[in-house]
Amino acid sequence: MARGRFITFEGGEGGGKSTQVRALVARLEEAGIDVVATREPGGSFGAESIRDLLVTGAADRWSPITETLLMYAARRDHIERVITPALARGAWVVCDRFADSTRAYQGAGGGTDPALIAALETHVLGDVRPDLTLILDLPVEEGLRRAHKRAGDETRFESKGAAFHEKLRQGFLAIARAEPGRCVVIDAAQPVDDVGEAIWGAVSARLPLHA
Amino acid sequence: MARGRFITFEGGEGGGKSTQVRALVARLEEAGIDVVATREPGGSFGAESIRDLLVTGAADRWSPITETLLMYAARRDHIERVITPALARGAWVVCDRFADSTRAYQGAGGGTDPALIAALETHVLGDVRPDLTLILDLPVEEGLRRAHKRAGDETRFESKGAAFHEKLRQGFLAIARAEPGRCVVIDAAQPVDDVGEAIWGAVSARLPLHA
Repeated sequence: MARGRFITFEGGEGGGKSTQVRALVARLEEAGIDVVATREPGGSFGAESIRDLLVTGAADRWSPITETLLMYAARRDHIERVITPALARGAWVVCDRFADSTRAYQGAGGGTDPALIAALETHVLGDVRPDLTLILDLPVEEGLRRAHKRAGDETRFESKGAAFHEKLRQGFLAIARAEPGRCVVIDAAQPVDDVGEAIWGAVSARLPLHA
Repeated sequence: MARGRFITFEGGEGGGKSTQVRALVARLEEAGIDVVATREPGGSFGAESIRDLLVTGAADRWSPITETLLMYAARRDHIERVITPALARGAWVVCDRFADSTRAYQGAGGGTDPALIAALETHVLGDVRPDLTLILDLPVEEGLRRAHKRAGDETRFESKGAAFHEKLRQGFLAIARAEPGRCVVIDAAQPVDDVGEAIWGAVSARLPLHA
């Protein structure tokens, strides 16, 4: 059995990632592919308990370095218990956020030393790297306006202020420029169906649906 | 104001660390020293919430690598919010477990790649290193017998089995051999007052009480 494909969605708040994950999963399933949809932080039983510590509470509840380590603890559990077993059985994994979010939120936005993040990528991710990363990009003001309309108490990152969110937007765009073979920037300010078509175009162009 | 001294207690289960931390703190306070007694995992509000994830539940709740990352997340919060501010104001910090426990439990016992642990020590500890580490050593069987007599539900590490505990005892002894300038091995099988005297002898020989 060939290893499955690993697709990640990245970007700031309010870009419609969870909606687009669902839409992509539906299209892949229609194409007869076994798909696992998941998210970070979380995605496994243990990682979801770490998520609770990360996404609730005051903006300064954790420093950027502590946050980086909690994110990687959750990510390692998620990799071991969900992502690696799914890819090994040939399933495709579609994940709402992955390691690029740490580079952008805790790195570009939070100021965590890139050397720590690079060491964690080396020793904790191992060879679990996305085959394709879709970066849903839109202006910060529009993203936060959409995010504020969502219900719920997972507002810790949204509350970090516009300057933080501008830094993380630029962080995601810098990742895309540095790794054009892996990353595609999608204009998330378009109507939702157009975003979905752009994503489907990128997926079908880059990943053969039937090897 | 001169930076305070940082003393850590290390060793396997049932060695009497928390009793000896209290005894040492009492003697230092009698000598007129401002002392902060603390512990890991935990020691700060945020780190104690991470501790709950680490010390309860099934032995295989987390893999050694995930455990290492959670330990370092808790440690970073503890350093930033408790240890560094205390040392900066000239207080001495006496801590029940610190970074050597990760080398022993998750490294020697759990098999986590030493390169990950070394990278975390470099990027997360920074210059926060113990001035003196007291390793309370006793045979595994005796340590587990004593630990089992304690009440409570923090039994996740105790439940990992005798082979694990023997590896971590050897891990602590290897640290002591590698860093004799920082570490002192204390025979914790002695009567409790004799252990206290041995500790006091090591502290007063190595750290001048009044600089």
